[in-house]
Amino acid sequence: MLLERARIAIFGASGYTGAELLRLLADHPRAEIRALTAERQAGKSIGEVFPHLATYALPDLVKIADVDLSAIDVVFCCLPHATTQEIIKDLPRGPKVVDLSADFRLRDPALYERYYGHAHHALEAQADAVYGLSEHYRQAIEQTWLVANPGCYTTASELPLIPLLKSNAINPDAIIIDAKSGVSGAGRDAKVGSLFTEVSEGIHPYGVATHRHGPEIEQCLTDFAGRSIEVIFTPHLVPMSRGILATIYVRNAPNFDAEAIHARLAEAYADEAFVNVMPFKSLPATRHVRGSNLCLIGVHPSRVAGQTIIVSAIDNLVKGAAGQAIQNMNIQNGFAEHLGLTQQPLFP
Amino acid sequence: MLLERARIAIFGASGYTGAELLRLLADHPRAEIRALTAERQAGKSIGEVFPHLATYALPDLVKIADVDLSAIDVVFCCLPHATTQEIIKDLPRGPKVVDLSADFRLRDPALYERYYGHAHHALEAQADAVYGLSEHYRQAIEQTWLVANPGCYTTASELPLIPLLKSNAINPDAIIIDAKSGVSGAGRDAKVGSLFTEVSEGIHPYGVATHRHGPEIEQCLTDFAGRSIEVIFTPHLVPMSRGILATIYVRNAPNFDAEAIHARLAEAYADEAFVNVMPFKSLPATRHVRGSNLCLIGVHPSRVAGQTIIVSAIDNLVKGAAGQAIQNMNIQNGFAEHLGLTQQPLFP
Amino acid sequence: MLLERARIAIFGASGYTGAELLRLLADHPRAEIRALTAERQAGKSIGEVFPHLATYALPDLVKIADVDLSAIDVVFCCLPHATTQEIIKDLPRGPKVVDLSADFRLRDPALYERYYGHAHHALEAQADAVYGLSEHYRQAIEQTWLVANPGCYTTASELPLIPLLKSNAINPDAIIIDAKSGVSGAGRDAKVGSLFTEVSEGIHPYGVATHRHGPEIEQCLTDFAGRSIEVIFTPHLVPMSRGILATIYVRNAPNFDAEAIHARLAEAYADEAFVNVMPFKSLPATRHVRGSNLCLIGVHPSRVAGQTIIVSAIDNLVKGAAGQAIQNMNIQNGFAEHLGLTQQPLFP
Amino acid sequence: MLLERARIAIFGASGYTGAELLRLLADHPRAEIRALTAERQAGKSIGEVFPHLATYALPDLVKIADVDLSAIDVVFCCLPHATTQEIIKDLPRGPKVVDLSADFRLRDPALYERYYGHAHHALEAQADAVYGLSEHYRQAIEQTWLVANPGCYTTASELPLIPLLKSNAINPDAIIIDAKSGVSGAGRDAKVGSLFTEVSEGIHPYGVATHRHGPEIEQCLTDFAGRSIEVIFTPHLVPMSRGILATIYVRNAPNFDAEAIHARLAEAYADEAFVNVMPFKSLPATRHVRGSNLCLIGVHPSRVAGQTIIVSAIDNLVKGAAGQAIQNMNIQNGFAEHLGLTQQPLFP
Repeated sequence: MLLERARIAIFGASGYTGAELLRLLADHPRAEIRALTAERQAGKSIGEVFPHLATYALPDLVKIADVDLSAIDVVFCCLPHATTQEIIKDLPRGPKVVDLSADFRLRDPALYERYYGHAHHALEAQADAVYGLSEHYRQAIEQTWLVANPGCYTTASELPLIPLLKSNAINPDAIIIDAKSGVSGAGRDAKVGSLFTEVSEGIHPYGVATHRHGPEIEQCLTDFAGRSIEVIFTPHLVPMSRGILATIYVRNAPNFDAEAIHARLAEAYADEAFVNVMPFKSLPATRHVRGSNLCLIGVHPSRVAGQTIIVSAIDNLVKGAAGQAIQNMNIQNGFAEHLGLTQQPLFP
Repeated sequence: MLLERARIAIFGASGYTGAELLRLLADHPRAEIRALTAERQAGKSIGEVFPHLATYALPDLVKIADVDLSAIDVVFCCLPHATTQEIIKDLPRGPKVVDLSADFRLRDPALYERYYGHAHHALEAQADAVYGLSEHYRQAIEQTWLVANPGCYTTASELPLIPLLKSNAINPDAIIIDAKSGVSGAGRDAKVGSLFTEVSEGIHPYGVATHRHGPEIEQCLTDFAGRSIEVIFTPHLVPMSRGILATIYVRNAPNFDAEAIHARLAEAYADEAFVNVMPFKSLPATRHVRGSNLCLIGVHPSRVAGQTIIVSAIDNLVKGAAGQAIQNMNIQNGFAEHLGLTQQPLFP
Repeated sequence: MLLERARIAIFGASGYTGAELLRLLADHPRAEIRALTAERQAGKSIGEVFPHLATYALPDLVKIADVDLSAIDVVFCCLPHATTQEIIKDLPRGPKVVDLSADFRLRDPALYERYYGHAHHALEAQADAVYGLSEHYRQAIEQTWLVANPGCYTTASELPLIPLLKSNAINPDAIIIDAKSGVSGAGRDAKVGSLFTEVSEGIHPYGVATHRHGPEIEQCLTDFAGRSIEVIFTPHLVPMSRGILATIYVRNAPNFDAEAIHARLAEAYADEAFVNVMPFKSLPATRHVRGSNLCLIGVHPSRVAGQTIIVSAIDNLVKGAAGQAIQNMNIQNGFAEHLGLTQQPLFP
Repeated sequence: MLLERARIAIFGASGYTGAELLRLLADHPRAEIRALTAERQAGKSIGEVFPHLATYALPDLVKIADVDLSAIDVVFCCLPHATTQEIIKDLPRGPKVVDLSADFRLRDPALYERYYGHAHHALEAQADAVYGLSEHYRQAIEQTWLVANPGCYTTASELPLIPLLKSNAINPDAIIIDAKSGVSGAGRDAKVGSLFTEVSEGIHPYGVATHRHGPEIEQCLTDFAGRSIEVIFTPHLVPMSRGILATIYVRNAPNFDAEAIHARLAEAYADEAFVNVMPFKSLPATRHVRGSNLCLIGVHPSRVAGQTIIVSAIDNLVKGAAGQAIQNMNIQNGFAEHLGLTQQPLFP
């Protein structure tokens, strides 16, 4: 039985992904926002927390314990990892859940523990979770109550690589992902490293060889490569609020050149609304996807024979978070996949 | 007879206001884009000129001479001043026109000539033009074929001041408008002064005492004050792409204090969808209106008795250009005024 | 007896003003840095706290209690207000002190208490403190052990206004200061309001009518006006790391016009190395003083008769903090006033 | 015979590298600026072209033809390529020349023609030119009248790679340089692609596989590797005015790991004032070298066995242009190499 309108709760609505869900859902014809939570800000209006949403009629913030889940069809969960699993494991079955944290992305509890520093406490829910890279896990998403929405770096990295690994178009051993992110990826917490004065007018790498999105990318690519995949993954912080650019260096498989790689990608995404493979040798800019659910992918031959450069761009808060979450909610509930996601990019 | 759908042409679609019209009209249920012009880029697709719109199905750019105006209901004219009047004076009567240039804003040809450096050549059309500050000229806009869409600084300055002058709440002699603009106000032309390296990480005033929006503000305020108004108006360039903030210093009229001034504004705009008077002593930020058609207005008492500080914020490309143009098109054509303009602000 | 070289301690060296003192003192031929303190980071090298200074040979951070003050000639005190007065009141007499906090700027303890929220606990030291606006309190600075270094907004506001009030060139009742600041003025503390994502691509006013620099400006201007002065002072936050721009609106005194006001300012600062009055009608940009101890001042006639617009620009961390502190140290110690302060601005 | 003071002319002083030479030379005790040229702006003061230098006593701009070269010891040539070779080939022998254009960097005229689109017309001068990567061509620089100052990307790429290729610490076949630049690298010309609105809040690759710094890097690395080197080199444009970050992916040579690679680099630059190898696993940020002649280099092991990530950061206008030019001038003239180059970085 399909819902006419999904009654929605957002847990952790006072962060940037919460605000972005609200922005996008305002245009969703089959979504109705029923509850917004923020434990420390319960009682406030959304306008007190996000002045840019002050003119938008929305329920006030409450605590999770005060949400009547029997009147909720979909929960978007935007809580920090660790907290998330405690909340989700105790949820009554009924609402469908799209979780934007990292808690249910890694299937291997030992890997989770190594990267997140503590044991996983919701292994039962973990067993039901489906990785929410919409274009590639669509059928499983339709069936599950719990979607583990992918990370931002991972979405930008996986979308261009999956079709190439599936079709053996590239050497799976030599993948390098040099990724660049805007600052909203660090969330709305007060941290010295995210201050304007520490970020503006400069660029630097961080989390090299240790970033938590590394194993997530590898798990997903391994799903499609038919063998274990390791990647070199280097994140950088760029003075912009939104956007992820992934510059990916691959070695062509025998009998493949950059043009054939481009053709393979173009074919793979020919019918997808949100993944756009640009003309051969055109390359994307993050500012051209700002505010939209698009992933742009460009392919360029390298100066060095036998190698190809692939560049993808997304808005980390949309296709890298809230937008893909809505896309997954649409899939789970049998809605047209583009509902709430038709806004054009905002440029300049 | 009302149109079911307006068939639209955009003249000068390769600039920022053209792109912004396209972004907003994509969500307008009763607009159909039929022709886009750009004289020097005729033949190109919109994606070649604006990569962020590459996935949006739109007609290719053509020359104005190649547009079949008999199949057009509305022309948005985004051409430079001077060129604009040459085009508009030769248009066949039929399509309604919203002109985003400055050519039809000043009613006095001598004033136009003084500020724009050449005589006005379309005085007949000028006589029909209605100034398009939607909230205050609505009835005349309904009747005219030609709307002179207001400037960005002027919209931000006029909206808070009109109700106060109408109700004699402030001293009309001592108005100071200290205004701050983002860089998109300068358009997409290659100019040294708009380079990233010349704008980033700094602020400076420009056009002091000479800016063309000065006489436009005065003409409009004079309409409502019942006497001639002069203003001090100082524009500044801020390292941001979008946004206008106007910090306005007024002397209270006898028997008025800041709170009464606030009440007068709140009352004036109580029923308006796009003008929001914030709670007393709250003040707006430009980033909280980005991408939306909102004008936020805040009122604060000054440290000095008898004076009040009023701050307004708009997105110069939306309420200050393309958004208000669509609002005016809606009024002209009998559409609900909010169509195409319901997007929430994009933050961060 | 003049010092050959001043042995210097910086208290609170882990903030931005501390870093800026280090940058400038590296070029000071008569300064020798002997001790750097930071209570919570004691034991670290400066490179751990400020990677940009990692190649600069400096002592490690220690606690104030571990500094041998008998071997120190000058203390730059960069501590938060309240803490500052507790430290300074217990200092042994001997070292000269330039205090960059607000604790000794306001002479009236009641005013201090009103604006800073607690009583002043070092009134004896307060009685010795000299306000360190170098160009105007030079003789008193030479004589004192304790300089209260001015605030950033206040320096930018006072330098253009003092000569005009002294010479009765302007109406002292109607001064409006619309000021714009970079983000480093908020310091290096982790605050949501200073995050890149909250500051970038926008502008907003803050502290309207309540900012602590308001009474400081009034106290200083009152010193020179020969009567009590009140000002309207409106700070705004701009997406840039450094810089203050003050746009000042004044009413001309009878017999003065903008040109005469310009002449008065040009004459007042003709012999000053760090205050530069630009040609009449030229106006400054903050980016043109970045990294330098310059204050640029421009004067422009208004559109409205009898009024003048004066614009000043400084780097808030240099002339608005560390640079002026070094200038004051030079004055106190009989050094040439420009030592350590000869760097040209960094542009772009 | 050593010069007491070098009498200096700057050809093409109205661009960013010209301004940067002026800023740095202001602190150079043995440099005296005698002539500044700018063909189209001849007759103007430097303050008209660069307001930030208005208070600095300098000669007005003249045409090259009006410079008395017999009274000049050193010419810094900041002209566009192609123009440069025409000027330099006709210079009288006498002044030493540091050329900041690309015209004398590539030794192979065929390669020059392929990348720059026209034949080289000054092959005689080319034969005398020495590539000015100061740390590695010092002895030849001492002997030549003509230094071809390296490009910005190339300096950042070559400094970390040369010692590793010389000592066979890395596989020379698999070098990937993912480089990120600030906007000042594009110069001060009015171009749409350098507008604030086109650059702010985003990142994109450009010149992939075709950028002119590709062959320059290969020529230099080939000099030290003892065999022909090919590199993959991908430039990106970052919303910042200054800075280059090069993230370099290398495969370790047999018997080398990341730590051994780090040790090799640390040893190679132990005695260099301007190249600083950070502690193992520390990585640089461009904002930490802003305004200084420093190159910071960091080394980190990869997640994938046998591979290492090396990151270098410079200020493109200093070590990547004007600073290295002064360093080369110092070497050519027997001055201490650090003269004029001792400024600490400007942060924030």
